[in-house]
Amino acid sequence: MRQPQRLGDLDKDEYQRILRRAAVKTESILSVIIPIVKEVEKRGDAAVTKFTAQFDGVDLAPKDFQVSQKRVKAAYEKVSPELIVSLKKMHQQVWDFHQRQKREDWSIDKFFLNKKEAHYKLGQRFIPVERAGVYVPGGRASYPSTAIMAIVPAKIAAVKNIIVVSPPSLKREMADAIMVAADIAGADLMFNIGGVQAIAALAYGTSTIPQVDIAVGPGNAYVQAAKAYLFSLGKVAIDSPAGPSEILIIADDSANYEYIARDILSQTEHAGDNCAILITTSEQLAERVYKYLKGEVSHCLRKAFIEKSLADYGAILIADSLNEAIQFANDFAPEHLEIMTKNPDDVFKNIKNAGSVFLGDYSPVAAADYLSGTNHILPTGGSAKRFSGLSVETFLKSMTYQSLSKGALKLMSSDITNLASSEGPYTEHIRSVKIREERL
Amino acid sequence: MRQPQRLGDLDKDEYQRILRRAAVKTESILSVIIPIVKEVEKRGDAAVTKFTAQFDGVDLAPKDFQVSQKRVKAAYEKVSPELIVSLKKMHQQVWDFHQRQKREDWSIDKFFLNKKEAHYKLGQRFIPVERAGVYVPGGRASYPSTAIMAIVPAKIAAVKNIIVVSPPSLKREMADAIMVAADIAGADLMFNIGGVQAIAALAYGTSTIPQVDIAVGPGNAYVQAAKAYLFSLGKVAIDSPAGPSEILIIADDSANYEYIARDILSQTEHAGDNCAILITTSEQLAERVYKYLKGEVSHCLRKAFIEKSLADYGAILIADSLNEAIQFANDFAPEHLEIMTKNPDDVFKNIKNAGSVFLGDYSPVAAADYLSGTNHILPTGGSAKRFSGLSVETFLKSMTYQSLSKGALKLMSSDITNLASSEGPYTEHIRSVKIREERL
Repeated sequence: MRQPQRLGDLDKDEYQRILRRAAVKTESILSVIIPIVKEVEKRGDAAVTKFTAQFDGVDLAPKDFQVSQKRVKAAYEKVSPELIVSLKKMHQQVWDFHQRQKREDWSIDKFFLNKKEAHYKLGQRFIPVERAGVYVPGGRASYPSTAIMAIVPAKIAAVKNIIVVSPPSLKREMADAIMVAADIAGADLMFNIGGVQAIAALAYGTSTIPQVDIAVGPGNAYVQAAKAYLFSLGKVAIDSPAGPSEILIIADDSANYEYIARDILSQTEHAGDNCAILITTSEQLAERVYKYLKGEVSHCLRKAFIEKSLADYGAILIADSLNEAIQFANDFAPEHLEIMTKNPDDVFKNIKNAGSVFLGDYSPVAAADYLSGTNHILPTGGSAKRFSGLSVETFLKSMTYQSLSKGALKLMSSDITNLASSEGPYTEHIRSVKIREERL
Repeated sequence: MRQPQRLGDLDKDEYQRILRRAAVKTESILSVIIPIVKEVEKRGDAAVTKFTAQFDGVDLAPKDFQVSQKRVKAAYEKVSPELIVSLKKMHQQVWDFHQRQKREDWSIDKFFLNKKEAHYKLGQRFIPVERAGVYVPGGRASYPSTAIMAIVPAKIAAVKNIIVVSPPSLKREMADAIMVAADIAGADLMFNIGGVQAIAALAYGTSTIPQVDIAVGPGNAYVQAAKAYLFSLGKVAIDSPAGPSEILIIADDSANYEYIARDILSQTEHAGDNCAILITTSEQLAERVYKYLKGEVSHCLRKAFIEKSLADYGAILIADSLNEAIQFANDFAPEHLEIMTKNPDDVFKNIKNAGSVFLGDYSPVAAADYLSGTNHILPTGGSAKRFSGLSVETFLKSMTYQSLSKGALKLMSSDITNLASSEGPYTEHIRSVKIREERL
């Protein structure tokens, strides 16, 4: 971790380096994933078996891909009763929050040019996709919480077929805790497959794995690139791109340096490419956090990850004012933004770009990772400027509709004629209206 | 146009052929567009000048890219007063409909486990992207209506910088009607550039063209592929993929065959790769539409397009029941769906996949292309299964947030511990909560 630096002292390159964090190199990865995707498209299950052996080190015949209901039941016996209780509590919390994201169909009755004979009706209906694929990372670690975060919004959107894929461990199956979490959340099918081959199988469908309309969930750079590539071909919808996790903390002299430092350690223990940045108006706070981190890192269980993340992507920045810090935050567009200032709401109201925001001393990211109820699948790497976290809407699409009366169409006819004449000219567009006038 | 066929008589290949329509071959196009994108990324304006000369046949220096305010004013003098009036009326109609799509921020106060000491607050805020690029097709034809359709939702979303690009005609500028329409709708900047080079310029920014957060609007297959490719690299958000335009009409024996036939002609006059399909429970209607079309095509101004579209992607299908027709419609997922039956609402309530729906005898697609108020930038090629048309939401992203009290965090602590222990284990996540408990 570098020593605290004044934001104003950073040269342009250094500023850009901080903003860039561990940018995913999708371009160079594409050449690796495209042949895998193509082989799964062509050979289906056989290709999934091949790549599962190659990348996960597990021999799985297609009949072993799917997790049986019996196996799910057995998983409940293998995890601790406390974990089951906590997963259910998490499920309830996430459900409560996401319920608020449901969309209502709407319609309006109108009268063109306010004429009573020119009635028409317009509206919009929201409809879930039919099948959603949920990628839950696995392998070395297991992420039962992610299963809940991805499945619950789909369930609230009323998606009928929710298909979970997660890489097999060396025991040839996804982790028991993932099975339990996915079952609590209401997954319809689970498959012990992961990686690029799992995303391709979901996008194209195979004999054993159903084709989905949307594939969501975090994964490594290869999984993300596969999702983006298949989206670009129009084969599947996806959620926002998600790369290494990150935090930005805005703090003033009222903030507690221990809380901040522990949140930085918490954020960087996932992997060696996480990013954690403190920006503060208080030099004293900056120094304290720096010293505390220096003293604590070596005592952390996952210190290798933390040290690497902090060395490569950590920073403690001193801002001249909270406004300068806010500007930096909007430029940085963090996945997680903690605001620990005297009046966090005053800062928050000026924030434009962030995945999820944590206000005050008692809202650590860890609380929302699991239990506050907001979603933890969030845009990273600055893409919060353009994208939102996972939500019920991710699984909905909308249709608009209209129903015109004779009178409305008749009154609209001359403007339609003017407009269609200015394009094309689209004489058949005009005649499709005129013929109805003639027959009125 | 083939003769009417019974849906049940189609073999699987023929059914798939109809469903496929003029599928965009993004894969093969990628190799063409990637070098153009890369050169614009690297050389900026100089590359845009080069490709504008190469593809649009126009020599434009970077200083000529932007349309001046003076030039926009002059455009108003060059188009007919009637068109200006109609564009303004269209603008008002589109504005009225899309106003209903605004999103409200929301928050909830909660008490964990219903304990009064465990208050916390959760919420979601909706925020526009900062800069949006709007692609308006041009060149041979001009699409002022598309400028309005793309700009209005961005404006209602409160996007501050709306940048219109449209290819220069041989007069070195975009069409006057596009300038006027974009100005009425409130575009902030306009550039006389189009094609892949315009999309790349918007995604990366150049010395003259601002970098945008999202690029929307229809375009040819190359433009669409460029958008998809740049999305997959994480450089820009995009709207739904949009290919050749299409219509599906569901009709029973109550429908008027002339209206149907004229809507089919209207749909297929855009280009030679449009798709128009009638599915009806009435053999008599099918025959009448077929005969009418046969007699009329040769009299159409744009008959070459119509003939080619109908020959390659047209069909008249006879269904055994409206239910069978509905099932086909959901499988086909049309951009435009007209329902001309005795009770269109009964059919509509079972429709799951469509871009926009047109109910009854007096709701031709042409009305909505210009004047009913719904958006005409819609998902095509079956992607209505996964995507929605352009809307205010296209330009919004959301942030979630949370503010926990000491009491809430304390009560959540044991569940967070259980959950974080099951992953990683994430001991630092746990400590970030515990340290706040210790200091309570």
